Amino acid sequence: MTGLSELLHDELQPLQRTLDTLETPAVLIDADVADANLVRWQQRCDDLGLANRPHIKTHRSVAWAMRQLQLGASGITVQTVGEAEVMADGGIDDLFLTTNVLGAAKLARLGALARRTKLAVVADSDAVVDAVADAAREAGATITVLIECDTGGGRCGLADPAAIAAMAKRISATSGVQFGGLMTYPAAGKRQQSQKVLEAAIDACKAVGIAVPVVSSGGSPDMWSDEGLAPVTEYRAGTYIYNDRALLNHGTATLDQCAMTVLATVVSRPTADRAIIDAGSKALTSDLLGLDGYGMVLEHPEARIYQLNEEHGLIDISACSAKPEVGDRIHVLPNHTCVVTNLFDRLYVVSGGALLGALPVDARGRSG
Amino acid sequence: MTGLSELLHDELQPLQRTLDTLETPAVLIDADVADANLVRWQQRCDDLGLANRPHIKTHRSVAWAMRQLQLGASGITVQTVGEAEVMADGGIDDLFLTTNVLGAAKLARLGALARRTKLAVVADSDAVVDAVADAAREAGATITVLIECDTGGGRCGLADPAAIAAMAKRISATSGVQFGGLMTYPAAGKRQQSQKVLEAAIDACKAVGIAVPVVSSGGSPDMWSDEGLAPVTEYRAGTYIYNDRALLNHGTATLDQCAMTVLATVVSRPTADRAIIDAGSKALTSDLLGLDGYGMVLEHPEARIYQLNEEHGLIDISACSAKPEVGDRIHVLPNHTCVVTNLFDRLYVVSGGALLGALPVDARGRSG
Repeated sequence: MTGLSELLHDELQPLQRTLDTLETPAVLIDADVADANLVRWQQRCDDLGLANRPHIKTHRSVAWAMRQLQLGASGITVQTVGEAEVMADGGIDDLFLTTNVLGAAKLARLGALARRTKLAVVADSDAVVDAVADAAREAGATITVLIECDTGGGRCGLADPAAIAAMAKRISATSGVQFGGLMTYPAAGKRQQSQKVLEAAIDACKAVGIAVPVVSSGGSPDMWSDEGLAPVTEYRAGTYIYNDRALLNHGTATLDQCAMTVLATVVSRPTADRAIIDAGSKALTSDLLGLDGYGMVLEHPEARIYQLNEEHGLIDISACSAKPEVGDRIHVLPNHTCVVTNLFDRLYVVSGGALLGALPVDARGRSG
Repeated sequence: MTGLSELLHDELQPLQRTLDTLETPAVLIDADVADANLVRWQQRCDDLGLANRPHIKTHRSVAWAMRQLQLGASGITVQTVGEAEVMADGGIDDLFLTTNVLGAAKLARLGALARRTKLAVVADSDAVVDAVADAAREAGATITVLIECDTGGGRCGLADPAAIAAMAKRISATSGVQFGGLMTYPAAGKRQQSQKVLEAAIDACKAVGIAVPVVSSGGSPDMWSDEGLAPVTEYRAGTYIYNDRALLNHGTATLDQCAMTVLATVVSRPTADRAIIDAGSKALTSDLLGLDGYGMVLEHPEARIYQLNEEHGLIDISACSAKPEVGDRIHVLPNHTCVVTNLFDRLYVVSGGALLGALPVDARGRSG
């Protein structure tokens, strides 16, 4: 992992702490595990002939995005204009912004981005197509627009093939924008349904004389499944860099492939069955993602984090054979890595059990 | 509100945006509503002869803490060493840190704080008392220690009066620390139970010859209740500055007293019954606090925010008479204001319908 080492060397902030003296709560990233996750997924995309366009919402760090590109990614995916700006500032020049952009000020920022990077966005209404086209013309740039398709996920997107074809025609006929293809985020476990909707949409576009250059799909939970991939040319996965308890529970990742833990200290043991750590909803978030409890304590897998206050996690340790004591430091595998990253200015990078330094979360808080 | 105007004048960052062109999602604070909340609560504390020690975890802004002190607060409450450092840097010199502090590096920071501010902390174990005392002696300072009591809340704290009295004796006999009294966070709706535990603890301390100078209680939900206040000398409330949907639902605040909203844009209307806004779990958080849905849309109170993705809120608008359209800007009353504040570097301050400027969230992310 020479490339990673070089990137980290440039990006990591030096620390006056070792792993033993780091103040808690702190987010630890095992660089070797994370990098192996990136390498393994790139290899699979290469094997399948899929373009790999990782979603950087999970790490929000320029260094990791650069590493993903170095390994062979065709570009990156971003979810907000703010993320796009941070990544462009970091030198990344091929961005796919998978959100409908609206509002005069934000559209002006989009136009400015299009002047300095290769930029694609999505749309699922004429209002968005027209707004993006206006912004592109205003900036003297061209923006690629993919149509977001609802293939069963029930989020944004068009589902009717005729409506998708009509919008493809509209995009093709509008100056400032060019038609880039179709984009979807399939429902978990429903990739065959997604395939049917996409194939019908592609046929409808072809029937009106419009080629579909890119079919972009995404999602970490089903990323290793071969089901229903056929029309897809590009894959957007995000969480796979760090993985988390939700993906572990889903069978997408093993525990050895989970790169992020939240280091916390047991600050109170008020009863025989209750331990309290200094990581609460401002460190772990309240995201449950269908799981029981707010994370898994690696040292005490029988423990259950049953409640979070803002700075405290309340743990039922009644089932633990060895009970954590006041002052113990424990590692929590968070339910959902992407929202944890976004709470911290920096993550602490570990390799071979040693603390290498702090990695800035460059786009933290850039939801606007 | 001359005092507030002066404080805001010093603290607000000027903007190139008006309220109409502000990029979403953005957190808006109605300064007049927030200030009236502060004035009303200070008046009640004055009427009751209670020391008001507001918890700054809700706003994490030096300017608001200064305003609370200007109105008559006896000092402030903080929940983390990081919050304490930010407030001390801002010139606030009377801090109550209501958490058990452990770990060599964090204790060293605590000692450094004690050299420059009046500082009290809590403890509920001998290990914490000894650690704080060591840190104080190391710094050549004295730290006041209150004993955290579990009066029914089931968080940290001792519940047994004899154990509390024994710890009070230990604190009194230890150099570097001095006994400051008792602290609790009562369970909602159980202040009479809290009263009984506190009175028994006070009696037990007196029986061993230890006076209890301060009895500190807290919590916004029951702050307006007269029940079980008798032994309490100091009150810690935080959320009341902004209020939120949880306190509205609890009957603690009216809608007119809610100062924080999240401004969002409707970016998609995929079906007749579904609207999607550009505020998701990275803007509203997944905190439910027992409520149905992730916030209340002020313009469409019949709408239900039934799912959050990271940057999108999915809204069921089937019950709405007038349906929001793509491009509409709406205001969401969040379930839990404290965790929303912590996601943003700045909040946007509004007065009389005009945007005054951006207020930095000075201690955002300072959970460590």
